[in-house]
Amino acid sequence: MWDRLLTDCNVATMDGRRGDPLGLVNNAAIGIADGKIVRVGRRAELAGFQAKEVVPLGGAWVTPGLIDCHTHLVFGGTRAAEHAMRRAGASYEQIARAGGGIASTVAATKAAGSSELIDSARRRLRALMAGGCTTVEIKSGYGFDPASEIRLLNVVRALGNQEAVRIVPTLLALHALPQGAERTEFVDRAIEELIPAVARLGLAEAVDGFCEGIGFLPHEIERLFDAADNHGLRVKLHAEQLSNRGGAKLAARYNALSADHLEHLDAVGAEAMAEAGTVAVLLPGAFYALNEKQKPPVQLLRDHGVPIAVATDCNPGTSPLLNPQLAMNMACTLFGLSPEEALAGMTINAAAALGLADEIGVLAPGMAADICVWRIADLAELGYWIGLPGPERRIVGGVDA
Amino acid sequence: MWDRLLTDCNVATMDGRRGDPLGLVNNAAIGIADGKIVRVGRRAELAGFQAKEVVPLGGAWVTPGLIDCHTHLVFGGTRAAEHAMRRAGASYEQIARAGGGIASTVAATKAAGSSELIDSARRRLRALMAGGCTTVEIKSGYGFDPASEIRLLNVVRALGNQEAVRIVPTLLALHALPQGAERTEFVDRAIEELIPAVARLGLAEAVDGFCEGIGFLPHEIERLFDAADNHGLRVKLHAEQLSNRGGAKLAARYNALSADHLEHLDAVGAEAMAEAGTVAVLLPGAFYALNEKQKPPVQLLRDHGVPIAVATDCNPGTSPLLNPQLAMNMACTLFGLSPEEALAGMTINAAAALGLADEIGVLAPGMAADICVWRIADLAELGYWIGLPGPERRIVGGVDA
Repeated sequence: MWDRLLTDCNVATMDGRRGDPLGLVNNAAIGIADGKIVRVGRRAELAGFQAKEVVPLGGAWVTPGLIDCHTHLVFGGTRAAEHAMRRAGASYEQIARAGGGIASTVAATKAAGSSELIDSARRRLRALMAGGCTTVEIKSGYGFDPASEIRLLNVVRALGNQEAVRIVPTLLALHALPQGAERTEFVDRAIEELIPAVARLGLAEAVDGFCEGIGFLPHEIERLFDAADNHGLRVKLHAEQLSNRGGAKLAARYNALSADHLEHLDAVGAEAMAEAGTVAVLLPGAFYALNEKQKPPVQLLRDHGVPIAVATDCNPGTSPLLNPQLAMNMACTLFGLSPEEALAGMTINAAAALGLADEIGVLAPGMAADICVWRIADLAELGYWIGLPGPERRIVGGVDA
Repeated sequence: MWDRLLTDCNVATMDGRRGDPLGLVNNAAIGIADGKIVRVGRRAELAGFQAKEVVPLGGAWVTPGLIDCHTHLVFGGTRAAEHAMRRAGASYEQIARAGGGIASTVAATKAAGSSELIDSARRRLRALMAGGCTTVEIKSGYGFDPASEIRLLNVVRALGNQEAVRIVPTLLALHALPQGAERTEFVDRAIEELIPAVARLGLAEAVDGFCEGIGFLPHEIERLFDAADNHGLRVKLHAEQLSNRGGAKLAARYNALSADHLEHLDAVGAEAMAEAGTVAVLLPGAFYALNEKQKPPVQLLRDHGVPIAVATDCNPGTSPLLNPQLAMNMACTLFGLSPEEALAGMTINAAAALGLADEIGVLAPGMAADICVWRIADLAELGYWIGLPGPERRIVGGVDA
């Protein structure tokens, strides 16, 4: 006796093992027990099974719950004023060099109490949830000093305990160098104090950095990744966003879960990522908000067989994007992904970018029953609409959320 | 005794008569009676007045309800497949010439029953309402023959009667030439049959056309506008979207309410619009979805003092955009409008584009009490977020909707 049987639906399982990357099952049913998928098949095949609750879905489309695998959701203030500055022509780099940018968010974050940070992040988290997210990665990174970073990761944990969504915390240890800080000393402190503390407290699943001229250089990221390795933490990296610094290749060398942004990725980097199984996380919201011209080399990623994920990058400065479906539409409209690639980018490949490919992102036996029910006629509509409000129904661990 | 008194809020009245285009009132209160604004002022100034209900808003920002002054909301099917074609490089013009585009929507619309059309349009309308719209213009245009166009306008009317939103119907009489139709005959029929019937039935407030190489030419639009004039209907025009055909100047000559799109507008057109008081309706969703490069000449519009409105252009082919706040963000991000201009574009100037400047779009005595309450700290956030789910509260005619 199962807990629930969803019927009368078409399912994109994203289980590509039979050759169809969408793993489509028409006229389907899904059996759920103990928060997990027990079976997905054609309605007729599941006719002999019984469930405590049968949920007919009226011909809707069903997908895995969306996974937003790259966000900076916890921060104080907004950067609405800076948004206007950029309209007047200032570049991200100019704003950063002028002491605006990340520094202003760090100050506003420091000034905010933890409950204020939880409340403001909750509003953004609920927007992503309403949009279809059942899993959201949240990075720290606006704290800078170890105590502040740990406070942010505690905020992330508290938020996750309060909302019907899976939260995956990431320590963004090297985000930007604070004004006046000495580089080596700052990196030392992240390595010697921050990473050990976060590992000991179990506050993050992975360690991240920003490899860029205005961020940290490869030799600094290398030291960070060595420290993460030593403490049993996986790594991921903001790489080749504004220039090619070889970050993707470096990340691959450390078996990074993902390299993110990648507008300036080259063939060497793509090849290394493919070999290491490092996921390419594309962030079209930042490309859009920064009016960038250089698109990530999508065909290169395809040619090398690098798995492509898509995320909102929700953050106050460069991507205040609150709708996961819009991230998929932007990936199609701005980067030329197919709707199928965009959906894979927020399900199966996003799960891989979080090291959770065995738990979420695919509707198959043993996986979490994290499900979106969409009132659409054609699955491609998930790439087509510009700002679809969200699914009709969102199920997390088998339960309507 | 008023019906309602909204208190503890900051208001952008959009009443610019005192020099501030936002008409800001901090620490404000708003008196409402019989569905209209009675008074807006600082809380202290309104202390002596009484209301049946006092509604404290906890420091929220209040704006006029958003007005989406350009949509094609009623249609059958979607064009999700075409969206994928465009990703593969096909232009709007190529798709249109290949018999796709509008023709496929006309066929799907014809195949759909009226209740099916109402249901699908209602889903889109509710998305716009949830996003903050209290008034939505809806054009016909996917019917082509007079009986079908009239059916669509009846669908628009039925929809308006069922939902808590003001609907402004527009007859889009010359949208595209059906394949195989004879040009002059098609235009004749619109003029001799369609416009008189729509005027007699009171089904539309204005007549619209698509002035473009792939649409209709100025001499045909002229005949359309003459007919509209003769039947006491106002006019508006899709002009200079893909090329400069002099449509804006033509529209101004007929005192058009608005000329819409305007990517290829020149100084002659802008000057004519300014003199006639014709509103420039910018549609960044179509620019975004078509990956256009030519932006509308915003500075030219400012220099000539042409009022600028912003709309979703929600339509199945070139702008399946479902969030009015996202239209404001796109107007800022893609076209360089300031957040204040974007807000004026979906309030006071959008009202003017519909000929309703005396009724909606500004929070001032005598105007409709159509109001959005936003849980934001800074008004500029309305231009900043990418896909804000919507206001916390939407009030139409004084009543929570």
